[in-house]
Amino acid sequence: MNLTITDVRLTPILVADPPLLNTQGVHQPYTPRLIVEVVTADGITGVGETYGDAKYLELARPFAERLKGRQVSDLNGLFTVADRVAVDASRVENAVDVGGLRGVQTADKLRLSVVSGFEVACLDALGKALGLPVHALLGGKVRDAVEYSAYLFYKWAGHPEGVPAEKDDWGAAVDPAGVVEQARRFTERYGFTSFKLKGGVFPPDEEIAAIKALAEAFPGHPLRLDPNGAWSVETSVKVAEELGEVLEYLEDPALGTPAMAEVAERTGVPLATNMCVTTFAEIREAFTRGAVQVVLSDHHYWGGLRNTQQLAAVCRTFGVGVSMHSNTHLGISLAAMTHVAATVPDLHHACDSHYPWQSEDVLTERLTFEGGKVAVSDTPGLGVELDRARLAALHQRWLDDDGALRDRDDAAAMRIADPEWVTPAMPRW
Amino acid sequence: MNLTITDVRLTPILVADPPLLNTQGVHQPYTPRLIVEVVTADGITGVGETYGDAKYLELARPFAERLKGRQVSDLNGLFTVADRVAVDASRVENAVDVGGLRGVQTADKLRLSVVSGFEVACLDALGKALGLPVHALLGGKVRDAVEYSAYLFYKWAGHPEGVPAEKDDWGAAVDPAGVVEQARRFTERYGFTSFKLKGGVFPPDEEIAAIKALAEAFPGHPLRLDPNGAWSVETSVKVAEELGEVLEYLEDPALGTPAMAEVAERTGVPLATNMCVTTFAEIREAFTRGAVQVVLSDHHYWGGLRNTQQLAAVCRTFGVGVSMHSNTHLGISLAAMTHVAATVPDLHHACDSHYPWQSEDVLTERLTFEGGKVAVSDTPGLGVELDRARLAALHQRWLDDDGALRDRDDAAAMRIADPEWVTPAMPRW
Repeated sequence: MNLTITDVRLTPILVADPPLLNTQGVHQPYTPRLIVEVVTADGITGVGETYGDAKYLELARPFAERLKGRQVSDLNGLFTVADRVAVDASRVENAVDVGGLRGVQTADKLRLSVVSGFEVACLDALGKALGLPVHALLGGKVRDAVEYSAYLFYKWAGHPEGVPAEKDDWGAAVDPAGVVEQARRFTERYGFTSFKLKGGVFPPDEEIAAIKALAEAFPGHPLRLDPNGAWSVETSVKVAEELGEVLEYLEDPALGTPAMAEVAERTGVPLATNMCVTTFAEIREAFTRGAVQVVLSDHHYWGGLRNTQQLAAVCRTFGVGVSMHSNTHLGISLAAMTHVAATVPDLHHACDSHYPWQSEDVLTERLTFEGGKVAVSDTPGLGVELDRARLAALHQRWLDDDGALRDRDDAAAMRIADPEWVTPAMPRW
Repeated sequence: MNLTITDVRLTPILVADPPLLNTQGVHQPYTPRLIVEVVTADGITGVGETYGDAKYLELARPFAERLKGRQVSDLNGLFTVADRVAVDASRVENAVDVGGLRGVQTADKLRLSVVSGFEVACLDALGKALGLPVHALLGGKVRDAVEYSAYLFYKWAGHPEGVPAEKDDWGAAVDPAGVVEQARRFTERYGFTSFKLKGGVFPPDEEIAAIKALAEAFPGHPLRLDPNGAWSVETSVKVAEELGEVLEYLEDPALGTPAMAEVAERTGVPLATNMCVTTFAEIREAFTRGAVQVVLSDHHYWGGLRNTQQLAAVCRTFGVGVSMHSNTHLGISLAAMTHVAATVPDLHHACDSHYPWQSEDVLTERLTFEGGKVAVSDTPGLGVELDRARLAALHQRWLDDDGALRDRDDAAAMRIADPEWVTPAMPRW
């Protein structure tokens, strides 16, 4: 058995995305992702997936070069490699991370997102080489299926007229009735029993009404609302008071640890975050101040599956809950999320996943939700297989793009429908 | 490849121990350890080692029965098994853990110590089955050798006359000159460059004099003093003031987080602990209060090598240093410590090890220190091999014992030399 990495392939792609609304704007019709493949001397290929915007690609290419000759089992060493890959800090530091919606962007955050794609690919290759599923490489699953929540979005029926786009059959959802209808479809198609609404799109009273409508339509089911930090502390407290009895948690009502800490102090509703705590360096202040009660981990943010386990250990130690965040992703990342989630002992909230919104994938077989859950694969590696024809087609779309879609830009997409649109100043309400 | 556990062997042994002094008394001439072997369906055997006192054996036996039929890769599941093994809580809760010197003993702490022996055995077997060293199962080494410190003890030249015991050639060390002489031997034999003195044995002024003598004999070398919580806050502060300039850290000067926090607040000397923080549940208060600056991890305490990595992640997140504690142990545990220490990125202090004091081992080949370091093995598994004749002989010694030595009791050993000896009330000074 030779675990030496002899080749690394990076394939940027564009995948279809429905017109999902958030506080920054609307999803573009196609969104970039990067597919990572590492190949061992024995010819085993492992796959990973991460953000595909240019700033990630710029880091991933030198990273890939440095991986050759290393052992696919050397997962701790990936961070050493990452430290050596230069980032043009002036380009990224302190910019707002629009695509990721995770607060202020730093070079370290970019690096960790790149590492995550390679780490998953290495784990997939290692598992295949050893005949072990990825969860076994992470210490073994403690559950056989991982529960996900329905990720509800305000959305238009379609992208603006004249814009090249794939069609979707979800219809529009711009009011409480539309949101409830979307939730019904989610339960019918996938069996989800908890619901998260991406908010920050309409004035808070409208979103409060949508959550109340969901509570009425699905009594007793866990509900969450996530305005991506669009509210002031006062608005956050008001929403928490209005919805306190029906919310499982309120996600990032306000931006930044001080504001979150104030909201937490003034309400009894648990606060979740994937914005004010997205790196280990941000934990200490947030936990000490009691700013968050649930951290929504995202292995792309945190640097992979093993770091996600470490985050879960830190949360457990400080009595903070853990669940999983999701941004637009494909089946490789859903498989990766499912493997690591299967190993976290105290995962008491259903994980988020955009996957139902992605009509396109690069796999020979899509992952499926049954009863709101994804079964944990016991096949060696992640348990997924690349469809090379699909990968090539989606890569061709990326090659054919004139650059307009290679960097996710929700505000640009919104300006097509509303030329006056400017990214809202925060807090928006 | 079949990773199913088909057999588990538990072999309690008694190993020779020199007359090392601590605040509770003196080491008995023989001390119990438990050797754990897990055997897979393919006939691969993994070895582990943990405490061997009766209370551990009582837990280990039902634990071993429950392991059969499980996968050797199912490391997360070991904690589920542990939770199901009943502990006679009334026997252990709130007793002082004399052998471990780690504060108050609880059923959970016992369970984790038992898990650690099985986890290491499973990792050894898994590594052998997969052809990977244990460090690769932990994400890969980030260094090729792990640095250890010289673990200096006040000691007698020999155990009391008439007591059956093995002889050692270290001589007595009951004053500053004896301590310096012992340190010289350590450097000559093993190349250690940092020194820890087990204190709490003599009045603080004598131990201050010993540290000053070491500082003079080994200028610039890292020095540590560990009285195992024998001092009051006032005494701790006084010692810190006297030794502040030469100490790398002061280890557990006073008992309990509140006392440690007060000492920390009143001195600039970093405080290390393996007493007030020995479980994840104890971290929050200690870190929030700034009571410790270095946690001395011990994989026997924390439930194995993977938990040790998680502890290191928690410490890193909160800006607390990490190093490794040691109690009497053999080569299996030294190999295990070395593998995990090799994977912890920010290990900035030399680890402790009693190993040089153990003239007996159960391995075909002893591990060696060169330049104060143990080389990280790249052999599949831990890289150690059981000497079955030695194991049988040391087990026979355990069988032949009338029970007097099957539970470590440093106070009982001291009473042989000093019939008036009673375990000192704390703080002793």
